[in-house]
Amino acid sequence: MNKDNPGNYFEDFRLGQVIAHATPRTVTAGDVSFYTALYGARFAVQSSDQFARAIGYPNAPVDDLLVFNIVFGKTVPDISLNAVANLGYASCRFLAPVYPGDTLSATSEIIGLSENSNRKTGVVYVRSTGFNATGTAVLDYIRWVMVRKRDETAPPPAKNLPSLPTLVSAGDIGAACPPLNGAAYDDTLAGSARRFGDYAPGERIDHVYGMTVEEAEHQLATRLYQNTARVHFDQFTEGKRRFGRRLIYGGHVISLARALSFNGLANAFHIAGINGGRHVAPLFAGDTVFAWSEVVARAELPERSDVGALRLRLVAAKNRPCPDFPDRSGQDYDPAVILDLDYWALIPR
Amino acid sequence: MNKDNPGNYFEDFRLGQVIAHATPRTVTAGDVSFYTALYGARFAVQSSDQFARAIGYPNAPVDDLLVFNIVFGKTVPDISLNAVANLGYASCRFLAPVYPGDTLSATSEIIGLSENSNRKTGVVYVRSTGFNATGTAVLDYIRWVMVRKRDETAPPPAKNLPSLPTLVSAGDIGAACPPLNGAAYDDTLAGSARRFGDYAPGERIDHVYGMTVEEAEHQLATRLYQNTARVHFDQFTEGKRRFGRRLIYGGHVISLARALSFNGLANAFHIAGINGGRHVAPLFAGDTVFAWSEVVARAELPERSDVGALRLRLVAAKNRPCPDFPDRSGQDYDPAVILDLDYWALIPR
Amino acid sequence: MNKDNPGNYFEDFRLGQVIAHATPRTVTAGDVSFYTALYGARFAVQSSDQFARAIGYPNAPVDDLLVFNIVFGKTVPDISLNAVANLGYASCRFLAPVYPGDTLSATSEIIGLSENSNRKTGVVYVRSTGFNATGTAVLDYIRWVMVRKRDETAPPPAKNLPSLPTLVSAGDIGAACPPLNGAAYDDTLAGSARRFGDYAPGERIDHVYGMTVEEAEHQLATRLYQNTARVHFDQFTEGKRRFGRRLIYGGHVISLARALSFNGLANAFHIAGINGGRHVAPLFAGDTVFAWSEVVARAELPERSDVGALRLRLVAAKNRPCPDFPDRSGQDYDPAVILDLDYWALIPR
Repeated sequence: MNKDNPGNYFEDFRLGQVIAHATPRTVTAGDVSFYTALYGARFAVQSSDQFARAIGYPNAPVDDLLVFNIVFGKTVPDISLNAVANLGYASCRFLAPVYPGDTLSATSEIIGLSENSNRKTGVVYVRSTGFNATGTAVLDYIRWVMVRKRDETAPPPAKNLPSLPTLVSAGDIGAACPPLNGAAYDDTLAGSARRFGDYAPGERIDHVYGMTVEEAEHQLATRLYQNTARVHFDQFTEGKRRFGRRLIYGGHVISLARALSFNGLANAFHIAGINGGRHVAPLFAGDTVFAWSEVVARAELPERSDVGALRLRLVAAKNRPCPDFPDRSGQDYDPAVILDLDYWALIPR
Repeated sequence: MNKDNPGNYFEDFRLGQVIAHATPRTVTAGDVSFYTALYGARFAVQSSDQFARAIGYPNAPVDDLLVFNIVFGKTVPDISLNAVANLGYASCRFLAPVYPGDTLSATSEIIGLSENSNRKTGVVYVRSTGFNATGTAVLDYIRWVMVRKRDETAPPPAKNLPSLPTLVSAGDIGAACPPLNGAAYDDTLAGSARRFGDYAPGERIDHVYGMTVEEAEHQLATRLYQNTARVHFDQFTEGKRRFGRRLIYGGHVISLARALSFNGLANAFHIAGINGGRHVAPLFAGDTVFAWSEVVARAELPERSDVGALRLRLVAAKNRPCPDFPDRSGQDYDPAVILDLDYWALIPR
Repeated sequence: MNKDNPGNYFEDFRLGQVIAHATPRTVTAGDVSFYTALYGARFAVQSSDQFARAIGYPNAPVDDLLVFNIVFGKTVPDISLNAVANLGYASCRFLAPVYPGDTLSATSEIIGLSENSNRKTGVVYVRSTGFNATGTAVLDYIRWVMVRKRDETAPPPAKNLPSLPTLVSAGDIGAACPPLNGAAYDDTLAGSARRFGDYAPGERIDHVYGMTVEEAEHQLATRLYQNTARVHFDQFTEGKRRFGRRLIYGGHVISLARALSFNGLANAFHIAGINGGRHVAPLFAGDTVFAWSEVVARAELPERSDVGALRLRLVAAKNRPCPDFPDRSGQDYDPAVILDLDYWALIPR
């Protein structure tokens, strides 16, 4: 809890510390509309109460990334207000569906600390968890972030590097998706006949369309998530810094790329987990985002015949269409790549 | 239904073909708020549950053009993804009111095909219909659009030009407006004392105010409608094409002009039908839209003493105020004109 | 009530005249989401139904300034369409909480008139009141505004200057806040442990963060409030006038500064009254807004042990961080200052 919040600096964190974040947030149909306007998402399950009910939801669930972004936003004032860089995500699981009317809150546990050799910054590893009003966890994920020290002479903490799983086991996903009636899942309304069995590991899909981002759009999005990181909002200050521009929130990029992926993955309606993710390069207003996906693997879920899981790599690039799949080679990425996200999507069988 | 949707090309369409479009959409109070923020609409019936209930609606109906734009958006991936130009609308009727909570879906029937002499493109005529969750048609309209051929050597279809009524009969409109209690309709709250009898054919009304359009606004709008036409979103690609700019979705222009028309037509609260419409010239971000209306005709509706119909021409112009009513002379329009829409509005008697 | 509304000119107003404004508006969860996206407000009471219920609200009330802006918007077509300048506010009281689903309407009484010596303009003083659907007043405030005369030769009205209280008595505020269960108010979730007793008169708080405003943002906001003042929307016309730019609606500045003030005043969740306010200088798109607050006074409320009132001065500046509290000296303000607002906020004891 903060007073006149200056945010935490690296030396303020303690291993094992649990932080309850401020500002619980009731998610409403208003947020759902806003999310649609921001990204143009078209997955039928999240778009239509009628479609969702037909297959077994009580009504349309809230888009998984809207939940992620809201939970993430809560963590910012305590975790990353003094961050230099958001380094990565791992082990993200969506644990329960979220519906309009649910109130989300969040906590974070410090699971690792490692001061950098320059003594000016350190890496903080946190496991953040989002809860609904009944106290049920709806989402958890690991994030690590490079945070400034307030005082360079502050003694470093004992170095603790948590284990960072590179993969969420297929046995650990699916809890946020109720048992579905696959027969009632209407491929025509969903926009594609391609189901679980129609995607093969190694397949690459160009999502074709590009979306140009405006300053007003990413600012509206980031405020909708109550994310307070100043780099996204303050041109006066950012104009004098490294990029000379406001930096677009990484979650905006993920949501945009995911919405673009509808074109080719229309039935992969639910993000069940995120294995890892990296913001390879920054995005700025005026840039146009393109995306492509690779089917990394296909997995059956224990005791579920309704849906299967596709492990997907979602790669976004700026100002570069992706028919030839710009990618990583070794440690280097094609200079246009901005996002490399490895996630599990559920898709009807 | 599409896989990795490349959209249909001219030679993919067949006369009589019926296409069920993807992504049903539950319309909510969130969409209504967003629509208000986009255009500033102020018609009391759509703005206030209390006002709407007083006159006989169960609660405030969704703005007709929000319904139109959502239904139109669904047709884009199947009908006009490869369009060169959206040529016109005809015979549009609003058939049932839509309320927050209703889920909209859409189908289109191919009612005409005509290849162009250049063999590179052809005109596709469709009748599109929007439905609510009970399967009741809420809207139908004819649209014709010039679509590219995938293969210029593909044989042309038999030429079929549908009859395109230039007027929806006054006997065919009004189904989306329940019987109203005119006595409970409060002119003061509605913003004008001018009712059906106070408008005379030939009258022209300058709507006075101008509204400048920003890129973020039309992109948010077009995504809210889940309209995927890439020309509205992708500056990287459009920057290299004819206009060098993203093109603003025509439905955004119609909604904007209609909202401006409140100033002079405050009681003409319901669009019952659209006789025809033409996007005379493109609109780009940074342009300021002005509008004026002409009362073309006045019609009583069969067996209805509560409301009458005004046939209105709504003309929008860019970067040019309209006190002198910039118009068409013969086939040519004043160069500032961007929209010429002929519609029926219901207004209390 | 207007026809083809040209707005009222100075000589159209009469002392004692009561104007019922057009377009009642049902406030919904959609408006609440939009407001969050516009300003990033994070006060827990307005953000979370669960938090609000725990302390005694039926559910999360609508942000006070959203109510203010909607009511204000209704008055524009009748009061300030021909305004030269919005001069000030006084004696604003929030009288009843507003919840999603409530329908707001507004009236204004002309309480003062004073022609200016140039005979081209005059000052109109109005007391505007917002009502919910049951006819309960939810808000009232005095505003004075300089309005053009239609005809410079029109005879001046008798000069009537109303008394303009510089302070709303602490005994007159709090009606919009139900009795709260302070024990259930969770400081951690609210984001701060500082309560009533932790603020001392004379204390100054830098809210630190800056927010850059985009044209699309203020236009969306101002339309959401159905405010029709053309200076905010019409670049074609404004581009040729004094500023060469669209002017940002003053209520947008207040909402932005108030949202920024969360950082330091997280528990001051409710604006109970506004003693006075002045838009010291205009704001334009591209400018970055910073803000600071001064605790002017602290007041107990009659018979309330749950909450107390802080009298706060909220000062906003453009393109200038505020660690040194840019302020007024005599009649002159620091050239960066754009807003000086004196209000009462309720805060748990």
